[in-house]
Amino acid sequence: MRKKIAIDMDNVIVDIEQHWLDIYEKKTGIVIDRASIQGKPEAEAFPDPEAARALLFEPGFFKTAPIMEGALEAVRKLMEHHEIYIVSAAMEFPNSLGEKREWLGEFFPFISWRNMVFCGDKSIFDTDYLIDDHVKNLDYCKGIPLMFTAAHNVHINRHTRVNNWQEVLDYFKL
Amino acid sequence: MRKKIAIDMDNVIVDIEQHWLDIYEKKTGIVIDRASIQGKPEAEAFPDPEAARALLFEPGFFKTAPIMEGALEAVRKLMEHHEIYIVSAAMEFPNSLGEKREWLGEFFPFISWRNMVFCGDKSIFDTDYLIDDHVKNLDYCKGIPLMFTAAHNVHINRHTRVNNWQEVLDYFKL
Repeated sequence: MRKKIAIDMDNVIVDIEQHWLDIYEKKTGIVIDRASIQGKPEAEAFPDPEAARALLFEPGFFKTAPIMEGALEAVRKLMEHHEIYIVSAAMEFPNSLGEKREWLGEFFPFISWRNMVFCGDKSIFDTDYLIDDHVKNLDYCKGIPLMFTAAHNVHINRHTRVNNWQEVLDYFKL
Repeated sequence: MRKKIAIDMDNVIVDIEQHWLDIYEKKTGIVIDRASIQGKPEAEAFPDPEAARALLFEPGFFKTAPIMEGALEAVRKLMEHHEIYIVSAAMEFPNSLGEKREWLGEFFPFISWRNMVFCGDKSIFDTDYLIDDHVKNLDYCKGIPLMFTAAHNVHINRHTRVNNWQEVLDYFKL
């Protein structure tokens, strides 16, 4: 039976973590090793959290982010068997709305606009699964939460963890 | 008990019908009386449906639309007793995303970004009520559907109808 699977964007189909570090380095000259930020809350992983957060509001930030490794093939495969919804908490960053919509059109042109959602709070969705990196979303989802590994969540263990897109496919036996 | 109420934008808190007629008149010189479009599907209410639909993709169309009469006071009153979510099918018109977010910030600055949703298909939401003008949304909502009157839905009678914001407040006994 086709299940409804909600999939987050940042840190799930978008490699926003590496992108953020890259842009921070470009702006400040400070190189931050991805290994050194494990277990730290997102903006606090940077020496200057406020400057790091300000980057999120800069035009172009979301549009130029790279796709997560394995996401394209995995989402395409999931769509053969299930109903996929891309659900992103984009409302916090108004400039991101158009950029994220463009990004989806570019990287996932086979996903219909009917299956895209930009929101704030994700607790009002009723899908069978939610694949997300944030416990603030996973804790309140109505379906089965799958925590996609990101630096900020490596010490949190209250949800089933998927470390990469291969593990998502394994979970769904695809 | 606080209920979750999802509220649509166009034809519910935004008077998009009048706005569309006004812009069409400005572009073509053709005056269309609001009474004459009752019962007609949206774009087909115009002599040139394709030209009418093209207007929806023009920059500025959604940003400049007027607020629906009574919406401001009614939504504010509803928020005192219930959890309000603005849920708009904005994904179909990518240019509308930023404009609708701006519009909400201007007309409803007291609504948090956490309670805003831009989507395609509304069937994945689980709220206690949905106030919307489109049966394609109302037919599949998980909660109680309330049909907000618009020209295109006047002959449809399978949902509880609210003709204006006063009737919404009456329905919720506020």
